[in-house]
Amino acid sequence: MTDTKEQNTAEPTAPHCPTDSAHLCMPDDARKRARHRLSIARGHLESIVKMLEKEDAYCVDVLRQIKAVQGALSGAADVVLRGHLEAHVATAADRGDTVEIVEELMEALRYRS
Amino acid sequence: MTDTKEQNTAEPTAPHCPTDSAHLCMPDDARKRARHRLSIARGHLESIVKMLEKEDAYCVDVLRQIKAVQGALSGAADVVLRGHLEAHVATAADRGDTVEIVEELMEALRYRS
Amino acid sequence: MTDTKEQNTAEPTAPHCPTDSAHLCMPDDARKRARHRLSIARGHLESIVKMLEKEDAYCVDVLRQIKAVQGALSGAADVVLRGHLEAHVATAADRGDTVEIVEELMEALRYRS
Amino acid sequence: MTDTKEQNTAEPTAPHCPTDSAHLCMPDDARKRARHRLSIARGHLESIVKMLEKEDAYCVDVLRQIKAVQGALSGAADVVLRGHLEAHVATAADRGDTVEIVEELMEALRYRS
Repeated sequence: MTDTKEQNTAEPTAPHCPTDSAHLCMPDDARKRARHRLSIARGHLESIVKMLEKEDAYCVDVLRQIKAVQGALSGAADVVLRGHLEAHVATAADRGDTVEIVEELMEALRYRS
Repeated sequence: MTDTKEQNTAEPTAPHCPTDSAHLCMPDDARKRARHRLSIARGHLESIVKMLEKEDAYCVDVLRQIKAVQGALSGAADVVLRGHLEAHVATAADRGDTVEIVEELMEALRYRS
Repeated sequence: MTDTKEQNTAEPTAPHCPTDSAHLCMPDDARKRARHRLSIARGHLESIVKMLEKEDAYCVDVLRQIKAVQGALSGAADVVLRGHLEAHVATAADRGDTVEIVEELMEALRYRS
Repeated sequence: MTDTKEQNTAEPTAPHCPTDSAHLCMPDDARKRARHRLSIARGHLESIVKMLEKEDAYCVDVLRQIKAVQGALSGAADVVLRGHLEAHVATAADRGDTVEIVEELMEALRYRS
């Protein structure tokens, strides 16, 4: 890590970004896994919409299904959060933007459901 | 309400159900409004999946978008819950299934996010 | 339940209330169980305050303890909610205040953590 | 840890710890502010316990009060989390324990209410 840090002084692009990016980018692995999970959640949500087209849909079944999708979204958010903590927050002291990056994250986590 | 109740003694079908249904059915209004909200949430979720296909997606932006969808799902769940409370829970003493319907709802609300 | 209902027409006081009360009262059992749970949570919270008086308290330990107390509060809230649903919401159609009691509950549940 | 730490220039103790501590310690400011907030929450919780000693306590009032305490606990947890992110997570790459510290935090945040 010390070596990385010394290289950091000359590093012009944000970590994990393919090109000169104005901001930090998600680690590829977290990005792909989050996308995969959210795709599945989208399919699940689609099935709830279909379920609600039928007149005999039952409230509690719908509540349970919505909760399941919320759980899937929380799981995807956890993947993103973990990637962010490892790639961007844990390296903040090195970059010298600790206060900003923590403030930004706290704001995003507030009222986290 | 009194009229409905008197009819209830002879009523073979569950309230709000179009046909002989083995269970209670969602009020039409709640069903349509929940479906509408969930359709919008699905579109939003679709846009996050697309966002994650780009290599320069930023973690905190994704977290914020996921949180927005979770808020939309909570809103839809509130519509369903309100309809259920009004149509099915508030009438439970009349039907005589208070314990069962409350137990079912508590189970569905547990760990509610 | 039907018998109770017929008596209800002459009933001047709110259910579960010891005296002429302007509002509905908690069922005794739920009230005592909720109080017991909240007493325990208060003791737990007291121990976290003490933990924070020591200079070597560790952030993640504190987070875990706070989460445990939040879980205990949620458990107590579930006891109260269940009592309310059984005693007051399930009988709302009989009393004729369904809309008001559901609105009040939805407001209290909103942003439920 | 000790070896890594000794390599970390001349710093022998864990950050923010008054003595040779086996673990990282909370920043003083976060510790005092969290303690203050939790003390207030404890007083609020105490008042709910008292409220539940009266037979005319009303369910929805109790639910609202519990929710208020939960909000206060979330606020205290945010203070602790922010201090942890700034003092310990943002410096993890320097210490070389990124994976461990992120795993520990994710575990503590899971099911965060």
